[in-house]
Amino acid sequence: MTIAGAGQGLNWLSASDAAAQIASGQITARDLMEAIIDRISARDATVRAWSWFDAARALKMAEEADKIPTNQRGPLHGVPVGIKDILYTKDMPTQFNSPHFQGHFPNIDASCVALLRGAGALIIGKNDTVEFAVNGRRAATTNPHDPARTPGGSSSGSGAAVADGQVPLSIGTQTGGSVIRPASYCGVWALKPTWNAVSHEGFKTCAASFDTLGWYGRSAADLDLLAEVFGIFDDQTPDIPALNGLRIAVCRTPAWPQIEDAGRAALKAATAALKAAGVTVETLDLPPAFDGLPDAHKVIMQSEMRSAFLAEHRKFGAALYPEMHAILRNEAGQTRKDLIAAQDLAARCRAEFETLAEPFDAVLTPSTAGVAPLGPDNTGAATFNRIWTLLHMPCVNIPGLTGDAGLPIGVTLTGPRFSDRKIIALAARIGSLLDGAPVA
Amino acid sequence: MTIAGAGQGLNWLSASDAAAQIASGQITARDLMEAIIDRISARDATVRAWSWFDAARALKMAEEADKIPTNQRGPLHGVPVGIKDILYTKDMPTQFNSPHFQGHFPNIDASCVALLRGAGALIIGKNDTVEFAVNGRRAATTNPHDPARTPGGSSSGSGAAVADGQVPLSIGTQTGGSVIRPASYCGVWALKPTWNAVSHEGFKTCAASFDTLGWYGRSAADLDLLAEVFGIFDDQTPDIPALNGLRIAVCRTPAWPQIEDAGRAALKAATAALKAAGVTVETLDLPPAFDGLPDAHKVIMQSEMRSAFLAEHRKFGAALYPEMHAILRNEAGQTRKDLIAAQDLAARCRAEFETLAEPFDAVLTPSTAGVAPLGPDNTGAATFNRIWTLLHMPCVNIPGLTGDAGLPIGVTLTGPRFSDRKIIALAARIGSLLDGAPVA
Repeated sequence: MTIAGAGQGLNWLSASDAAAQIASGQITARDLMEAIIDRISARDATVRAWSWFDAARALKMAEEADKIPTNQRGPLHGVPVGIKDILYTKDMPTQFNSPHFQGHFPNIDASCVALLRGAGALIIGKNDTVEFAVNGRRAATTNPHDPARTPGGSSSGSGAAVADGQVPLSIGTQTGGSVIRPASYCGVWALKPTWNAVSHEGFKTCAASFDTLGWYGRSAADLDLLAEVFGIFDDQTPDIPALNGLRIAVCRTPAWPQIEDAGRAALKAATAALKAAGVTVETLDLPPAFDGLPDAHKVIMQSEMRSAFLAEHRKFGAALYPEMHAILRNEAGQTRKDLIAAQDLAARCRAEFETLAEPFDAVLTPSTAGVAPLGPDNTGAATFNRIWTLLHMPCVNIPGLTGDAGLPIGVTLTGPRFSDRKIIALAARIGSLLDGAPVA
Repeated sequence: MTIAGAGQGLNWLSASDAAAQIASGQITARDLMEAIIDRISARDATVRAWSWFDAARALKMAEEADKIPTNQRGPLHGVPVGIKDILYTKDMPTQFNSPHFQGHFPNIDASCVALLRGAGALIIGKNDTVEFAVNGRRAATTNPHDPARTPGGSSSGSGAAVADGQVPLSIGTQTGGSVIRPASYCGVWALKPTWNAVSHEGFKTCAASFDTLGWYGRSAADLDLLAEVFGIFDDQTPDIPALNGLRIAVCRTPAWPQIEDAGRAALKAATAALKAAGVTVETLDLPPAFDGLPDAHKVIMQSEMRSAFLAEHRKFGAALYPEMHAILRNEAGQTRKDLIAAQDLAARCRAEFETLAEPFDAVLTPSTAGVAPLGPDNTGAATFNRIWTLLHMPCVNIPGLTGDAGLPIGVTLTGPRFSDRKIIALAARIGSLLDGAPVA
């Protein structure tokens, strides 16, 4: 399936191209914003990616931006950005898609929002999210490729808005698979960086050991542009060898039994495309200790949720949706001993994964089990993402492949902690091989 | 030295006693608040523990609390609490003691503040802090025992206010030694709980891997009362054996070469008091790997500060105070490789410490190298605290001992992650042995 009207108009520019064209005077911020507003107007009734958007205000922001002298402009000058509605924005409500927080309006900016504004970005609205970025109430958002399908959760609106040409950049968060999953389902580029490479300040905490800001863009260059704005750097400036000098590991992970046909085919197609380009591809099997990681993720996430949502638990009790209430009541009976064992296993596996990955330039792994399922209740699962979130490793979703019913499916490129810029650079190289590659 | 007017009046009640007396109708919240206001009025010009306090408003809060029916009251009903001025309070400014944030007024409550209000506590004001709870501008606060001396940092006002009888409970935060150090210097009870046992949401992040909420009270029971309000629990309800069945390890830590005479004497006096009471006391020497922990703490803290303060760094640049600016510019040249090695070392030592501590009921260790130094520029050092912060272990400062010039000095009781309630219960038992014990 293709997205209605895809590719027509300035709203389809990548953030990098848009920033360059505004900087050179080829287009104005207003030109771009008009195209954005037209696109949102045309598509919002179907895609519903925004929980808050004001077209007149967005246009005015662009007009103001155009008045700023060129020598006072940042790297994102005039570029519209959408913000997941669990991140604080001083000039818009932040409602967590929760019935308990309607009208909630913190008057401060999340750290990332302050950095975006400082770089000249125009914060045009809030993207819909699964309630509290956890579970419960789903975003109203649909998949731009098929409104009957989920865009994935929890950064549903952020992923769909970029995929649908409604904004060139958006910010999401990931605690399980909430950045990479929507990227795979919607067919867009996304980065979940190394844990704590970007400040967590100013958003609704879910699990402090995992919560990670991430972002969506229309190219690997867009991801890199935001990595620069957010101060992410590797020890070495990435120096990517020619394709026939690359060595990539394919890692099925302990989640492989949950793979679906589309996911299997996507990984196979990506592997074939790499090999055809001369890349050395090898299999990386994780040792048995890694089999405990999915459970470790669950124990840590749910235990930390009991700290993070204690105030809401006390205040709203059983009025919280049942799935969350069960976690907050610890119906699973998780102990502190379980939590400590899970944290220590994760720490050991972080170091061990990096040793195993050392001979390779990067590791290729599924982004999702398959294509976007029928929504809205089913937002898909974090099955193939949560171990990387737990391990704190940077992950890029590379789009370009197509699965069942012509729906997009991504693959993930990952690697050691704080190799984010290298992973982005490698993903750019690999992405050009996958775009439109045949999927068996 | 003794604190002027110590022990005279309701303002010297412990939080537990105050809560019980209000609950039984023996006193009203207004009675207590009047005594608090009188004390603050008498002492604020000397101790300067508050960056924001409004007596009329505090009195009105108490009067409103007295009108609430007894069946609608929480466990802290009517108990005044002070909040470190890096934690958001929706009805008071939060200014981080920074010249760059004067008038800053987030309209939301930190998670802990919401929990306190939900339990019936009266949030009466903001306690002064070292700028951003890091370094730079010092709190105006003096040590209640001697105004020429520091109360310790960074939770300077929180520690001093409780020590001086200005409030029975206060909240601080610790990233290095910012809760335990003021407790030792001011002679009050304090808990730095296990990392992430209490939500970090709603305060100025410094280093996300370390930032921990902590609190000051007038007894171990006060610490326990707040632990309950903040939802801290161990796997087992603490069951403390008789003193002659206790086994306590004394751990000098890799920081021991920095100990001063008063710190050495305090640990010796505590050991002697324990032995005299029939407690089995043994030495716990940490293996050589632990020698790397002080440096590991520094690398992680400063690296994470570069994420946490990137927005301030971009916005204020060299207008930030020089010590912080040097860290944000990474003048020390810390690498990502250093950071990963530090995180992995810390993770290994967490597990190893718990194995070493397993034969013991708890571990006794210095709270500070010595007594409070002359201030205000010198707020003391986190030398003896930072390894426990790094290891995520719960720490209680036990007051009661006296060092040079009659100044207070504490000792720390620590133990495995999530043994907080047991450590508090043990500290209560040990505290009764130390109160007024002779110090050589």
